Amino acid sequence: MKRSDRLVALTNFFIENPREHVSLPRFSEIYNAAKSSISEDLDIIDRVFADEGIGRLRTVAGAAGGVKYIPEFSVNNGKKFIDVLCQTLEDPERLLPGGYLYMSDLLGDPAVVKQIGRIFASQFTDSNIEAVVTVATKGIPLAYAVASFLNVPVVIVRRDPMVTEGSSVSINYVSGSSRKIQTMVLPKRSLKEGSNVCIIDDFMKAGGTINGMVSLLSEFNANVKGIGVLVEADDEEDDERVVENYLSLIKITHVDLKQKQINISPGNFHTK
Amino acid sequence: MKRSDRLVALTNFFIENPREHVSLPRFSEIYNAAKSSISEDLDIIDRVFADEGIGRLRTVAGAAGGVKYIPEFSVNNGKKFIDVLCQTLEDPERLLPGGYLYMSDLLGDPAVVKQIGRIFASQFTDSNIEAVVTVATKGIPLAYAVASFLNVPVVIVRRDPMVTEGSSVSINYVSGSSRKIQTMVLPKRSLKEGSNVCIIDDFMKAGGTINGMVSLLSEFNANVKGIGVLVEADDEEDDERVVENYLSLIKITHVDLKQKQINISPGNFHTK
Repeated sequence: MKRSDRLVALTNFFIENPREHVSLPRFSEIYNAAKSSISEDLDIIDRVFADEGIGRLRTVAGAAGGVKYIPEFSVNNGKKFIDVLCQTLEDPERLLPGGYLYMSDLLGDPAVVKQIGRIFASQFTDSNIEAVVTVATKGIPLAYAVASFLNVPVVIVRRDPMVTEGSSVSINYVSGSSRKIQTMVLPKRSLKEGSNVCIIDDFMKAGGTINGMVSLLSEFNANVKGIGVLVEADDEEDDERVVENYLSLIKITHVDLKQKQINISPGNFHTK
Repeated sequence: MKRSDRLVALTNFFIENPREHVSLPRFSEIYNAAKSSISEDLDIIDRVFADEGIGRLRTVAGAAGGVKYIPEFSVNNGKKFIDVLCQTLEDPERLLPGGYLYMSDLLGDPAVVKQIGRIFASQFTDSNIEAVVTVATKGIPLAYAVASFLNVPVVIVRRDPMVTEGSSVSINYVSGSSRKIQTMVLPKRSLKEGSNVCIIDDFMKAGGTINGMVSLLSEFNANVKGIGVLVEADDEEDDERVVENYLSLIKITHVDLKQKQINISPGNFHTK
């Protein structure tokens, strides 16, 4: 295979298989090229990936050596993307009865979801995450986007056990904003004991749900290495946030139903 | 930018932005290269993509001309992937009380989900799909995988309206297997009138849920151009399947709880 062809094939391989470790001899074999040629290909790809701000190739030396693609997203690119999202969300047409904000169009757009996944994955890239945990249902696409960049499985916490998931561990927790007692469950088979995990969700108010997930995960002796929420609601009257050390991309600072006004600002990602 | 660098950058662009139409002058500008050079790059990429069996670049001639990447997955590659899935699912350890099959590990693996998405997207590639519709919750990751290859939004049907989604259209339908009357809802804002859609779900028995979705979608005058299910259960005693013209990748033909035996065969994708 010629260099030009190999560059296309290798680039496709890396983008489609983030964090997949492949040895140089294996690439030599697949593309029928000398190891030195493959090495030069990898240098070119690494440099272009760095210039494009999409990540790096990480090489591992030695007998078990090889290379893997670590996706990254520069903080600057992340901020630009979030600024555009914030503007989109300030549209008064998005206001729903009760002061809720319509966001399903954004969460339904695979390209938007993918970028959000890229931002969180970049932040948790060095935490040896082994699974991404979310709660059904709105966080699910975000969790898959993060997981695909980290090359780890998604584990879904539910409100009720499902017959198709076998025996489950359940806990009761107090919802932060409504102070109601609620239940959440996680199938026993879905998470290995002692895993490193990150939690991803679409929305956080007081943080009761995420706090519940942390409790449930402690039943599996999981290590929560990071918490990422797309939107946090900054409720001025109620400063009893029960979760600390989370990463938020967007903050709803004020909703005025009468004036039809929404104030949105970037979340703590901008200042971290 | 040198050809080698452009090939890496362009390949990344196409893989990350399927079905995104870009004009040649635009690429010329981004990569600071003559249109004739870009044309040659595109020929190389198109040829390698075809050899790798991952899709083609489709060029549009004329003033509004340009190029887009149409992801494809050869039927043969699809069949190989499905055969491996079938073997994985026949493991008796997957049997759950009630004769259900544990599949959450596979549905939780972003790489598996992506391949499934690629297979369905390839089948529906010429149907001008404008949205992928699924029902919460297990079909959601599959729907996003299909939608990302088709570059269209995901629309999620739910059992109950959510306060964060505004006013909804709801219908009642009869569940195929349990004959119970159930409800499903779709937010009014989530789907444009008269859209071309495909329906994606993880599991189908008699097909009542999918039939319900078809009814609900008719309230939006949507055209259901395709129906894809990952697994269908072939219940010999009950031949009242209410859905026709669906595509299934995997078929559960027999489950024997006492003997701890599961028989799995490829779905109708293999014979279509």
